Amino acid sequence: MRVAVLGSTGSIGTQTLDVIAAHPERFRAVALAAARSETLLREQADRFGVTRICLSDGRMQGALSGPQGLVELATDPEVDLVVVATTGAAGWEPTLAAIRAGKQVALANKEALVMAGSIIAVEARKMGAVLRPVDSEHSAIWQCIQGEGVADSHLMAPRDISKLILTASGGPFRDTPKEDLEQVTPRQALAHPTWNMGAKVTIDSATLMNKGLEVIEAHWLFDMPYERLEVVVHPQSIVHSMVEFEDGSTKAQLGVPDMRVPIQYALGYPDHLPYAELPRLDWSQTLELRFQPPELERFPCLRLAWEAGRQGGTYPTVLSAADEEAVAAFLRDEIGFMDIPRLVEKALEAHENVPDPDFDVIRAIDTQTRARVCEWAGIARATTLTERA
Amino acid sequence: MRVAVLGSTGSIGTQTLDVIAAHPERFRAVALAAARSETLLREQADRFGVTRICLSDGRMQGALSGPQGLVELATDPEVDLVVVATTGAAGWEPTLAAIRAGKQVALANKEALVMAGSIIAVEARKMGAVLRPVDSEHSAIWQCIQGEGVADSHLMAPRDISKLILTASGGPFRDTPKEDLEQVTPRQALAHPTWNMGAKVTIDSATLMNKGLEVIEAHWLFDMPYERLEVVVHPQSIVHSMVEFEDGSTKAQLGVPDMRVPIQYALGYPDHLPYAELPRLDWSQTLELRFQPPELERFPCLRLAWEAGRQGGTYPTVLSAADEEAVAAFLRDEIGFMDIPRLVEKALEAHENVPDPDFDVIRAIDTQTRARVCEWAGIARATTLTERA
Repeated sequence: MRVAVLGSTGSIGTQTLDVIAAHPERFRAVALAAARSETLLREQADRFGVTRICLSDGRMQGALSGPQGLVELATDPEVDLVVVATTGAAGWEPTLAAIRAGKQVALANKEALVMAGSIIAVEARKMGAVLRPVDSEHSAIWQCIQGEGVADSHLMAPRDISKLILTASGGPFRDTPKEDLEQVTPRQALAHPTWNMGAKVTIDSATLMNKGLEVIEAHWLFDMPYERLEVVVHPQSIVHSMVEFEDGSTKAQLGVPDMRVPIQYALGYPDHLPYAELPRLDWSQTLELRFQPPELERFPCLRLAWEAGRQGGTYPTVLSAADEEAVAAFLRDEIGFMDIPRLVEKALEAHENVPDPDFDVIRAIDTQTRARVCEWAGIARATTLTERA
Repeated sequence: MRVAVLGSTGSIGTQTLDVIAAHPERFRAVALAAARSETLLREQADRFGVTRICLSDGRMQGALSGPQGLVELATDPEVDLVVVATTGAAGWEPTLAAIRAGKQVALANKEALVMAGSIIAVEARKMGAVLRPVDSEHSAIWQCIQGEGVADSHLMAPRDISKLILTASGGPFRDTPKEDLEQVTPRQALAHPTWNMGAKVTIDSATLMNKGLEVIEAHWLFDMPYERLEVVVHPQSIVHSMVEFEDGSTKAQLGVPDMRVPIQYALGYPDHLPYAELPRLDWSQTLELRFQPPELERFPCLRLAWEAGRQGGTYPTVLSAADEEAVAAFLRDEIGFMDIPRLVEKALEAHENVPDPDFDVIRAIDTQTRARVCEWAGIARATTLTERA
């Protein structure tokens, strides 16, 4: 299988290349794109013998550039599968273009489904395209519904399923009293107990916003109404998510946290390829798995995400944009930890919904929301989706 | 689907009829058989309007009788699926006959696979027949391998699987010191913490022999070598078993213990039929799941079963026959709890293996083993397979 990796220099991108390198008989990297990391991109291209490369936010000898470069790689006739591991709006256009070109798409970009789920998921369904989830939670659900009356060609409308249950580590402040949450520092929030991730997603894990965004993603990926999506706090991050069926039978996918497992499954689906480096659970040791309901009062971001998802339209865009600006400000020590949900809530309350938005509307709402949040907080605006794309 | 229930008056049989009654549009009981419970069998036949009935160990107006009656029901042209919920050797002949007649077979009879696995599983494979497991552990594994490169028509040779992990409650003496196990009374041993079952299987759960028998069944059902079968003690009995794949990804099936779930799945496969009475896990409550390795020194029955399974031939027959006599003697208070593994081990040590035995050899070894065990223990012989069949 010939693979294009968009966002090859990030955490998911480099681990995707590890998986590709582990299975030379099965996968071949034929296209690589990065936003700005020219040196690493060049090294990767040399190591994997890739000639189709794109530096989307810069200029580089022999490489494509800009959003159009990403789309070109995503639709290249020599590409079978596109891994979308870019961040922000940079993922939308190539995702949609790849779907329309009949490619297999492995999706690690959260914003694509959170902000543009109504466009991308609907298009995928129309095209009968496969959207292969890369997030460990969605991969777990996808693995659990294999063979369960779901047509192989897409992820939608599984039969007999009563509920999807996403697990959340609960983050470092799982048991922190509400009043102490106000005093949390960026340094404390960046110390995630189980997964090693980037700064934005680590803070989102600490506020449970990350789980809220995943609820919205799950809604679109699995065509599941919000009332049949549930979140359970599971501190050990061993059970990656679960599916409850109509007979009460529940399936879970579990394992030692390692993103290469869901990445490899997205590439090698439906096979579970052997890869000696991947960790295994050790049943010769005592293992305790704990599950508890999330506390929405202490973690309002999860409630806000749920509400934004249910309302649909441009609400998820507002949620995502407001959160991104608020998290950036928190990381710069300009606002407190609990100001993140306050700003997001204020942005949602101030918003007037646009049902069935197109990309231009989503971008405009994104820009507007970021400006509002920064103004309210008296902070410098970080960036806009349009600027980043 | 027209269903024959062999052993309709036992625990599995009556729950099977509950499931059938819950789905009149889907299932119809067309044949019922019991060993001796004439009154209940008559009631069931009236309630479900069944005319094909068999009282295998007695005489009854308008009913078939004897082993031949069971075979007749199992091969009746009006029957699509045969639930074999008889105990002992009474299950072998109709199981084999049903397979040969091209029926779907839901197997709740342990002895069939433990003692005659080499005959029955091989025949099922040859015929491309489905052996649908009813045990909660094997049902869990079966559910977890759905869609995993396993042909729908049989259970064998799943791809990409590295290990099957059977969970065991550990029984009421999970944490009892070895020296205290000698003093265990039948009454203590009959108080199973999570599952409500018959006396024999409850004692087998307390010695872990039950899990050992299930390891042998899993070996035959899933064509899995013994070195890729593992047992994990899980006191809560929520996770019913697991499958580890080649990439370290592990799937588990879980739920509130209720035999109607695996029974219904065996009948309705591959669907998870809605059935309002079936219990569901409540994720709004804190849940703790514990896993720990079994202690073979305190529970030698598990080790003995493993060894008998690996050696194959007639060793599993000796294991099963010796255990049945020893458990019966323990329940009559004639021997101590730890005499059960001692007698089983002695029987295995005294045995000379017969590879590839036929039914007659298995029956002869069964009779011989029971006689030996009773002689050693100075107890009255309970019964033989031949007498019961």
